[in-house]
Amino acid sequence: MSTYKLTLEYDGTAYAGWQRQRDRPTVQAAVESALHHITRTDISVIGAGRTDSGVHALGQVASFRSERAMTADQWTRALNAWLPPDISVRSTEQVDDSFNARRWAQSKLYEYRILNRRARAALERQRAWHVRGKLDVEHMREGAAFLTGQHDFSSFEGPQAGTDKKVCHLRRVDIIQAGDILTIQLEADRFLKQMVRAIVGTLIEVGRGKRLPHTMKEILEAHDRRAAGYTAPGHGLYLVRVDY
Amino acid sequence: MSTYKLTLEYDGTAYAGWQRQRDRPTVQAAVESALHHITRTDISVIGAGRTDSGVHALGQVASFRSERAMTADQWTRALNAWLPPDISVRSTEQVDDSFNARRWAQSKLYEYRILNRRARAALERQRAWHVRGKLDVEHMREGAAFLTGQHDFSSFEGPQAGTDKKVCHLRRVDIIQAGDILTIQLEADRFLKQMVRAIVGTLIEVGRGKRLPHTMKEILEAHDRRAAGYTAPGHGLYLVRVDY
Repeated sequence: MSTYKLTLEYDGTAYAGWQRQRDRPTVQAAVESALHHITRTDISVIGAGRTDSGVHALGQVASFRSERAMTADQWTRALNAWLPPDISVRSTEQVDDSFNARRWAQSKLYEYRILNRRARAALERQRAWHVRGKLDVEHMREGAAFLTGQHDFSSFEGPQAGTDKKVCHLRRVDIIQAGDILTIQLEADRFLKQMVRAIVGTLIEVGRGKRLPHTMKEILEAHDRRAAGYTAPGHGLYLVRVDY
Repeated sequence: MSTYKLTLEYDGTAYAGWQRQRDRPTVQAAVESALHHITRTDISVIGAGRTDSGVHALGQVASFRSERAMTADQWTRALNAWLPPDISVRSTEQVDDSFNARRWAQSKLYEYRILNRRARAALERQRAWHVRGKLDVEHMREGAAFLTGQHDFSSFEGPQAGTDKKVCHLRRVDIIQAGDILTIQLEADRFLKQMVRAIVGTLIEVGRGKRLPHTMKEILEAHDRRAAGYTAPGHGLYLVRVDY
């Protein structure tokens, strides 16, 4: 029995997120189905992060165990042959048997892309959130600065959250402007459910002048989801990297 | 009767190219259908470039005439309300009545995107050509340099071409590397059918070491399509801009 670590890229548009569900296509189910085709056995795959419906990944990490004698490269090729065209295995590594993609994760990097222009999106319609109107990016950066560090992020947690532990260490929030694309990068040891999307939606309200930058501090301290703003849509979000 | 100039962005994945066809969806047909919904009259749209099947546009230009009294911004909003989500009007301008998007075009900029990595594409599968293996980008640049200037480009013209005039003035070919994305930009007064795709396919053969850079000169001088290389697929190509 060997343990493997997969690094996956996917276009989340056609999926109801990462985690297996009874009636809807998910990325986990697609990977497990490909493993079943290859090995003719049922193999469970553990993902580092449970991406939501429509959310993309450039570097999701997943682990699985198998008795099948195959090299890492053979796994990559076999999985890519069976996976649908919107999911790609970037690499496979054989790892220590105690490895678990979710529990061993030390840090994750998410990126949120905003198309900030008047005309609606066409090419980026499933890749970025279309936000009209001028954004005060300097105010957004000021607001974001209140979030870095170790905090209880309950105010930015979605409904039906699965965990009691609300403290995350947000290592950085960077806001990068390039033409009409605004990219918000967030790196933390862990993220609560829909946390990135709630932070981004609230920062956009700051950018639009509906909230002042320093209110981000008050929102954090409220420990109440109603204190924060809109939850940005899933299709602008990318899980970029998981570090171990 | 007024004449309007539209700047259009589109994801070409679902379309059999720009030009209207009897049985297949095209971008021109979608724009004409939106105009019909708005005006209840039949309006012909003239595109600056006839993009092929699967080819995208960031800034295709099209012209049409209408008696309908609407401002440029009202046209933009009305068209975006009727157009499908993969086609967007970036802007509308009222122009001189003699304006014709095809005949008045002075220069066009195309961009071709190549995903150069081992693992197959997922997010970029309909947005870039996936090319495996190391490419000698410096050799590609040397080869491309033989193409700039005024030349008969017959060797890079696709079958069933519609024009007798084979001379184009290729103003620049730039090859830009950013991570695993290689972008080839080509600017010319005019392009022959499938010319960008044949140039890109041939340059990739240079990058792979199958052809030496200086053979680009010999290919040009052959005036024979068989002298050049592979035609790169449509889904990596973008019509970026048309200048008047």
